[in-house]
Amino acid sequence: MIVILKQGVNDQKIQELVSRFEQMGFSCHKSRGEHTTILGIIGDTSRVDIEAVRAIEIVEDVKRVSEPYKTVNRKFHPEDTVISVPAGGRGAAKIGGGHFAVIAGPCSVENEEQIVAIAREVKKSGATMLRGGAFKPRTSPYSFQGLHEEGLKLLKTARKETGLPIVTEIMDLSHLEYFDDIDVIQVGARNMQNFELLKALGHTGKPILLKRGLANTIEEFLMSAEYIMSGGNAQVILCERGIRTFETMTRNTLDISAVPVLKRVSHLPVIVDPSHAAGLPWLIEPLSKASVAAGADGLMIEVHNDPSCALSDGSQSITPAQFDAVMGRIKALVSFEGKKMS
Amino acid sequence: MIVILKQGVNDQKIQELVSRFEQMGFSCHKSRGEHTTILGIIGDTSRVDIEAVRAIEIVEDVKRVSEPYKTVNRKFHPEDTVISVPAGGRGAAKIGGGHFAVIAGPCSVENEEQIVAIAREVKKSGATMLRGGAFKPRTSPYSFQGLHEEGLKLLKTARKETGLPIVTEIMDLSHLEYFDDIDVIQVGARNMQNFELLKALGHTGKPILLKRGLANTIEEFLMSAEYIMSGGNAQVILCERGIRTFETMTRNTLDISAVPVLKRVSHLPVIVDPSHAAGLPWLIEPLSKASVAAGADGLMIEVHNDPSCALSDGSQSITPAQFDAVMGRIKALVSFEGKKMS
Amino acid sequence: MIVILKQGVNDQKIQELVSRFEQMGFSCHKSRGEHTTILGIIGDTSRVDIEAVRAIEIVEDVKRVSEPYKTVNRKFHPEDTVISVPAGGRGAAKIGGGHFAVIAGPCSVENEEQIVAIAREVKKSGATMLRGGAFKPRTSPYSFQGLHEEGLKLLKTARKETGLPIVTEIMDLSHLEYFDDIDVIQVGARNMQNFELLKALGHTGKPILLKRGLANTIEEFLMSAEYIMSGGNAQVILCERGIRTFETMTRNTLDISAVPVLKRVSHLPVIVDPSHAAGLPWLIEPLSKASVAAGADGLMIEVHNDPSCALSDGSQSITPAQFDAVMGRIKALVSFEGKKMS
Amino acid sequence: MIVILKQGVNDQKIQELVSRFEQMGFSCHKSRGEHTTILGIIGDTSRVDIEAVRAIEIVEDVKRVSEPYKTVNRKFHPEDTVISVPAGGRGAAKIGGGHFAVIAGPCSVENEEQIVAIAREVKKSGATMLRGGAFKPRTSPYSFQGLHEEGLKLLKTARKETGLPIVTEIMDLSHLEYFDDIDVIQVGARNMQNFELLKALGHTGKPILLKRGLANTIEEFLMSAEYIMSGGNAQVILCERGIRTFETMTRNTLDISAVPVLKRVSHLPVIVDPSHAAGLPWLIEPLSKASVAAGADGLMIEVHNDPSCALSDGSQSITPAQFDAVMGRIKALVSFEGKKMS
Repeated sequence: MIVILKQGVNDQKIQELVSRFEQMGFSCHKSRGEHTTILGIIGDTSRVDIEAVRAIEIVEDVKRVSEPYKTVNRKFHPEDTVISVPAGGRGAAKIGGGHFAVIAGPCSVENEEQIVAIAREVKKSGATMLRGGAFKPRTSPYSFQGLHEEGLKLLKTARKETGLPIVTEIMDLSHLEYFDDIDVIQVGARNMQNFELLKALGHTGKPILLKRGLANTIEEFLMSAEYIMSGGNAQVILCERGIRTFETMTRNTLDISAVPVLKRVSHLPVIVDPSHAAGLPWLIEPLSKASVAAGADGLMIEVHNDPSCALSDGSQSITPAQFDAVMGRIKALVSFEGKKMS
Repeated sequence: MIVILKQGVNDQKIQELVSRFEQMGFSCHKSRGEHTTILGIIGDTSRVDIEAVRAIEIVEDVKRVSEPYKTVNRKFHPEDTVISVPAGGRGAAKIGGGHFAVIAGPCSVENEEQIVAIAREVKKSGATMLRGGAFKPRTSPYSFQGLHEEGLKLLKTARKETGLPIVTEIMDLSHLEYFDDIDVIQVGARNMQNFELLKALGHTGKPILLKRGLANTIEEFLMSAEYIMSGGNAQVILCERGIRTFETMTRNTLDISAVPVLKRVSHLPVIVDPSHAAGLPWLIEPLSKASVAAGADGLMIEVHNDPSCALSDGSQSITPAQFDAVMGRIKALVSFEGKKMS
Repeated sequence: MIVILKQGVNDQKIQELVSRFEQMGFSCHKSRGEHTTILGIIGDTSRVDIEAVRAIEIVEDVKRVSEPYKTVNRKFHPEDTVISVPAGGRGAAKIGGGHFAVIAGPCSVENEEQIVAIAREVKKSGATMLRGGAFKPRTSPYSFQGLHEEGLKLLKTARKETGLPIVTEIMDLSHLEYFDDIDVIQVGARNMQNFELLKALGHTGKPILLKRGLANTIEEFLMSAEYIMSGGNAQVILCERGIRTFETMTRNTLDISAVPVLKRVSHLPVIVDPSHAAGLPWLIEPLSKASVAAGADGLMIEVHNDPSCALSDGSQSITPAQFDAVMGRIKALVSFEGKKMS
Repeated sequence: MIVILKQGVNDQKIQELVSRFEQMGFSCHKSRGEHTTILGIIGDTSRVDIEAVRAIEIVEDVKRVSEPYKTVNRKFHPEDTVISVPAGGRGAAKIGGGHFAVIAGPCSVENEEQIVAIAREVKKSGATMLRGGAFKPRTSPYSFQGLHEEGLKLLKTARKETGLPIVTEIMDLSHLEYFDDIDVIQVGARNMQNFELLKALGHTGKPILLKRGLANTIEEFLMSAEYIMSGGNAQVILCERGIRTFETMTRNTLDISAVPVLKRVSHLPVIVDPSHAAGLPWLIEPLSKASVAAGADGLMIEVHNDPSCALSDGSQSITPAQFDAVMGRIKALVSFEGKKMS
């Protein structure tokens, strides 16, 4: 950690600050320039509160040199994490370390016929997991909010029919009890910094699919994964799903660079959700292919049998027939990249 | 609502869509241009799911003409809402409609001596409410997370000593029971779209201080207030606290325009938090003054007796002596603007 | 064009506005809702000044229904534009319509030995054009600003040695005379809305490589291309090179979605510059592959024989050996996508 | 400057790098931590190319400790710069150091009657300078582009009639000869990094009003001012006019914090353009007042006699009568803040 001191600070005050750091167990190197004096603080500074140091009277600015995240850091865990997702105890889909996963299904679970039919279709096309929302975060209180427990029950029916593991979003800590028999618990973008929820999920033994918040940096994203992992749960799947920028032709801006950056600094699997990133069905194919080529470990795609009648987010879904065509191209590219879908 | 149809759509499909809207109780006006045909949908379209319409095969795009928010809309409630905040049953601070509130105090409650001393100091300088965090949302799992219930207890002690109403943040729905005797419940920026929490707060009888999310539009901010108001709780205070942009010299970018925009489209009181917006103590004075001049109904300012020893966010706090100096300028300007602090 | 009127406007004023549009040759459809009246303006509205309409007293808002760009619009030119770039009169590289181009070379031309050596190396690895800066836009007046005319001369030497067409940036209209014998003139991101320059380039017969500005929307990008094309020059290559967002781990955020969006709405070829988008050499390979997979028609990559001694932007360059390795992967993927490099 | 080295670098390579810096005249301090070694480079590093250092093989990252700007830096010029603007040789308006300027007038000069009438009106209301565009940067090639030389002539007529100094925008270096008798030359947001233009303006003896680019950081803004000042022209007025963010209710987001930040780090006068920042006439008053309260040295406001007939940007203009009412409030607040308009 580098501490930059204000101009014209006297030696006694500098010495007091040095002593303060030394008492905390750090060693301190002082460099005095013409206009600026800096201190290099050496030791494990990840637990130092950078804001408190910045508030010290003689301090101009503070810069971190090492990453504030540990358990998710590839430096301390060089091999790829591979997560095995059982389907209610039977079989398993894998993700990470050469295993590519495709999670497909409707934005919302609407009824048994719908979710079972879509599950069958996406499985036939090659999806390895089924998604479907039961608890839906909606901007407007007047929009459909999901079927709740009933929706989870229908997902399990679809799993039973197809053998696909199920992925569904938790919106609030108080619903955690309902997710006992869910295979992957999804944390939505709006909840990426719902720290109480993250802490609780750190104590479950379940794979967690963590979506990046619309305005969160890659570092904050990793710190949220750190909340889960530091609680003891090492099964975290990172999901890039678009960030908020000034561009309005797409709903969000897919940060494709986040894929190779996350793969480099962390050992966790990284997937992309092109449906939410773009908000336009005809962008799903090119963005899916770009994600595979950039090194992603999987995709999450919205598929609905009748997008114009969907109770939520219909406009970004594709039909099962469209999904089948897109999957043809995705499977070829995954294989070209030397990964396997299983 | 305007529905723009794709090029070359045949008349029969258009007629089917028109019938569909008419069956939903809307009337439809069709305008056919050289390249484009549009439909004007007339009626209360705030409950129509714009995404589902966009997903209809023959639809190119959809644009809303009227606002999706109702209870918070000034069109249906032209007078300013004035919120009275009792201090644990005694006295009251007011906000809105010419009443200007200053909410001051530390980022985190640390111990009784600290919070009581700061409460006394800020009251002497003219603050009308006391803030202090007991549950702290922190980016890192390794940072201080607050004193929790003990912190709430200490805030009540400070209220008893000073008569100042207390404002403190709720982080999770499961903690709601602890907030029974809190005067104003704050919803932090990261929870602005924690819809389960908003719904629950809509059923309390308490003033809610709702902070704008870092990447949320003004419209989404109002929709979150709509969640609370549509549940029956009309006491919502809107707080602008900076949005995330590319600029790095300040922690966030204070969206000062949001103040007059919110005052124009909504009847709710609007305050500004310059401490979180800027992240730099020397910006608190100019940003506070700008907020008053732009028409804000109040301010929320972090004050700490020893910023460099603060357990969280010390670097953006000012000392009680600095706060006293800033308050001198704020009070003069509030009075110049014809508002009263009470 | 949809004109939304303010609430409570009287019929006479509406009729005056309708007459005004009719006198301009448009037809007008009026839809009166409960709270809002809208006018649909029908005809070629691309020449209407939307701001002037918005300023009319009874107007609340105006929304465009058709695109403001024409010559670059795929609607009026469905086939892909293919641009042939001769190398100083000899041979030609092609771009667009199935032809994939790779433009490689150093950020700045430094001396003859450097540029000729790099040109030979990148040609051997499969690059189809040579880039190199002679006029360099630099944030600081104290940084190296390029070799100017001497740099252009050295580029021509390298072209003579290798037969590669040369691409180089123009910084100011007053330098246009020096670009007579340059094969492709590049307009940098900072000049994307230098309209005097765009107009002048519209009257040259040369291919123009137009880079998207850091904060420019896709629509503004196309309007700048429209400046060039409406002047009579149809040879415009669009280049996505990253936009400015809050993320700091990468220098800019590559907007990968811009590639398929631009390809869909325009007939012009689209390339990607991963070097400037990311600012990090290890991101060039994954971002290049993502661009190919997303449908780009080419790439522009910085290659320098000694990045640490580069006089500008060294940190984002790769060495010829690294470029050769990356090109192996790019060529395989281009071929997999059914395009050819020539 | 702090150079952070990669993990596991051997001592010999570090020593070579140290020698390299020492040969350039710097001294070097080395701090070796458990995981990281850093070098503190001491001396005038503003001329070091940070990118070239970052490209060195053993370097992980580089951070600047001192600002890259010099002549604009308040550290080396503690007193406020006051700029005197003569009106074609007669009289003078002042800006900076307690002098507050209001620059008002139409977006575009349209004809003599219009510009003279507006000039008279804004002078009567208290404006200290007249603005008006003759060369207009327009997003669309089909929009009105200004009257060019004829527009400049009309501005001089208006100056003669009113004695107000005139401020007008230059779009291209090739037009510089026409600006000989213009009092303040404006550089628009899109030209903030048109470095050839900035260099040329650094050799004129005229006050330059430099607008911040839509996506430019405060540091880049100051570096552009540095281009002008390092050429010998110390009369630079900085103008904040809104930055581009995700918010769509306002055209841009006024970065009000930029005012106190610029005033703190630079000695140059700082003004605000609320018309372009917001794009909505009813926001001009609150944003103007916010700017005064935040410490601005002036304002630039668009005034048009008939906004709905304006040939450009009508929707953001206010009428002379509205301007007169706004000026009443601005003058009172300027006086309250202890500044004078002259």
